[in-house]
Amino acid sequence: MDEAGPEPLIDALQYADWTRAHFADWHAAGLAAVHVTVAYHEGARETLTRLADWNQRFRDHADLIRPVRAPEDLAAARREGRVGVILGAQNPSPIENEAGLVQVLRDAGLAVMQLTYNNLSLLGAGCAELDDPGLSRMGREVLREMNRAGMLVDIAHAGERTQLDAIEQAARPVALTHGNPRFFHDSPRGTAAPVLRALAETGGMMGFSLYVRHLAGEARCTRRQFAEMVARTAEIMGPEHLGIGSDLCRGWGGETIDWMRNGRWRLVPETERAAHRAAGWPAQPEWFQRTTDLHGIAAELREVGFQPREVAGIMGGNWARFFSKALAADTADTARAAAE
Amino acid sequence: MDEAGPEPLIDALQYADWTRAHFADWHAAGLAAVHVTVAYHEGARETLTRLADWNQRFRDHADLIRPVRAPEDLAAARREGRVGVILGAQNPSPIENEAGLVQVLRDAGLAVMQLTYNNLSLLGAGCAELDDPGLSRMGREVLREMNRAGMLVDIAHAGERTQLDAIEQAARPVALTHGNPRFFHDSPRGTAAPVLRALAETGGMMGFSLYVRHLAGEARCTRRQFAEMVARTAEIMGPEHLGIGSDLCRGWGGETIDWMRNGRWRLVPETERAAHRAAGWPAQPEWFQRTTDLHGIAAELREVGFQPREVAGIMGGNWARFFSKALAADTADTARAAAE
Repeated sequence: MDEAGPEPLIDALQYADWTRAHFADWHAAGLAAVHVTVAYHEGARETLTRLADWNQRFRDHADLIRPVRAPEDLAAARREGRVGVILGAQNPSPIENEAGLVQVLRDAGLAVMQLTYNNLSLLGAGCAELDDPGLSRMGREVLREMNRAGMLVDIAHAGERTQLDAIEQAARPVALTHGNPRFFHDSPRGTAAPVLRALAETGGMMGFSLYVRHLAGEARCTRRQFAEMVARTAEIMGPEHLGIGSDLCRGWGGETIDWMRNGRWRLVPETERAAHRAAGWPAQPEWFQRTTDLHGIAAELREVGFQPREVAGIMGGNWARFFSKALAADTADTARAAAE
Repeated sequence: MDEAGPEPLIDALQYADWTRAHFADWHAAGLAAVHVTVAYHEGARETLTRLADWNQRFRDHADLIRPVRAPEDLAAARREGRVGVILGAQNPSPIENEAGLVQVLRDAGLAVMQLTYNNLSLLGAGCAELDDPGLSRMGREVLREMNRAGMLVDIAHAGERTQLDAIEQAARPVALTHGNPRFFHDSPRGTAAPVLRALAETGGMMGFSLYVRHLAGEARCTRRQFAEMVARTAEIMGPEHLGIGSDLCRGWGGETIDWMRNGRWRLVPETERAAHRAAGWPAQPEWFQRTTDLHGIAAELREVGFQPREVAGIMGGNWARFFSKALAADTADTARAAAE
């Protein structure tokens, strides 16, 4: 990737109805690594099948992609010229009510987990919830265990109080893999200023979303406006805490939005389901349709005044440095385990 | 372990109501590694909780035990002076009806799996089954996948035809981790002579059981008779294919026998359950009550004519060599994955 110089291009969130064409797109775009969603509302058992699906993709498309489970896998992917794939869940539903499943699912390949997805979870509250009690008792336990096991804590989709609790209590930096500041995306899903500041102060990361519903003016948002939003956030957080988490969703229809929004927690009237299906997936702005369009964003960031080194960091270098620490198991624990 | 010289002491099957006392016994006995059972009839979801239980034991008792998941973990355990624990299932129930769960559960820590437990499974028939159709279509698929993933195929408790099918069709050697030859244990659970020969011809392993029900004459069986049985098997198979899989079960009552025998597949009358509970666990012969009694067996093997080097192999060296290959993922696949 020319724009990024020697630094990798990384996207901290995509979710598609995966086919080889997507992996070929990643490869052609020069993507070094990508975090993908394997679960929204799935419990432990279903998550195993989703992980098995990815194992099969890694075998079927081993010329294009490879798993990234440990820090060294990031460098291996670049060396091999393959796109490194980090598996994550947008909900803690996979661990159900068992803290011990953090390590079990981490071992099975799940490297990232959100504390909540819009709603109340067993760990805390989502951004769309009626009220936010902050991190729960189990939330504190699971946060510790995720920190120990090297499973990245993702505060995207969480409520502000839960986000601030997690940032404050985590033993290592957390990330908001995909979202935009509230000054740009004025909704509970937009990230509040105190959260941006707390992330930056603790070495955390903010991944900017390109999902059309997260853009000011939605489909009318220009690439320049997006770049200016990044610049304004850099003034708050510093450019070294910024990255891309495009939330690029491809190949889905409206029934997937229905699944993401409603899972099985809501008894959706059939008329509403039909409306979801009829509406389909919302169209992206023409300047961000696919992974290779990240290069245009890199160019736009230079246009709004970022230095080439800063652009390279935002387009992936910052995520690479962050993930290479976040995916390592806690060293104190590792040291204890290695001791006689 | 003096009797074994520089070779490790390994037990290829134990199952207990685990407490720190068991791990301390292992350590005091100089055990290098042990294969333990985590599932008899559990499905995928329950198996995750059993794996989480072991993760917790590995943390709580890290001074005594450590997981053995990859070949290099065997050497690491010896270097660290800790007992290496290999996790296995005595039934394919953990993968349910999904071949993809082999890799997922292998990654989560399950390193060994039996094809059947006494009954018909989705893969083939158990030794107590009414008839044995041999390895099923799914059985062949799962055998290939276990061979690829480096999950040891265990043919203990399988029917003879299923055992011979597995030995013949496996791409790498299989093991019968715990059992005795039929000439010594005359029951369908006893291993038929053709299976012993086929195991030896393909580089497989036979682990001798010390469970009282597997001994000729049960509790009246002497250590000398046991050693003579090993010697007679060595004449059939060669001493390099022999090891110990003691099937030592500690801390359980009769309700665990009920669970092992009947799981949830059988509607056990309450009177029979009460009889199981009342009977408790059968008593072991006085010469094999705990792990340290393996040293007496080693001495007895010398008495019946084995050379010190042969005894060292049978007491663990053979298992160490076998597991160091069996626990590695298929190299062709690994090579493919590493290729650009």
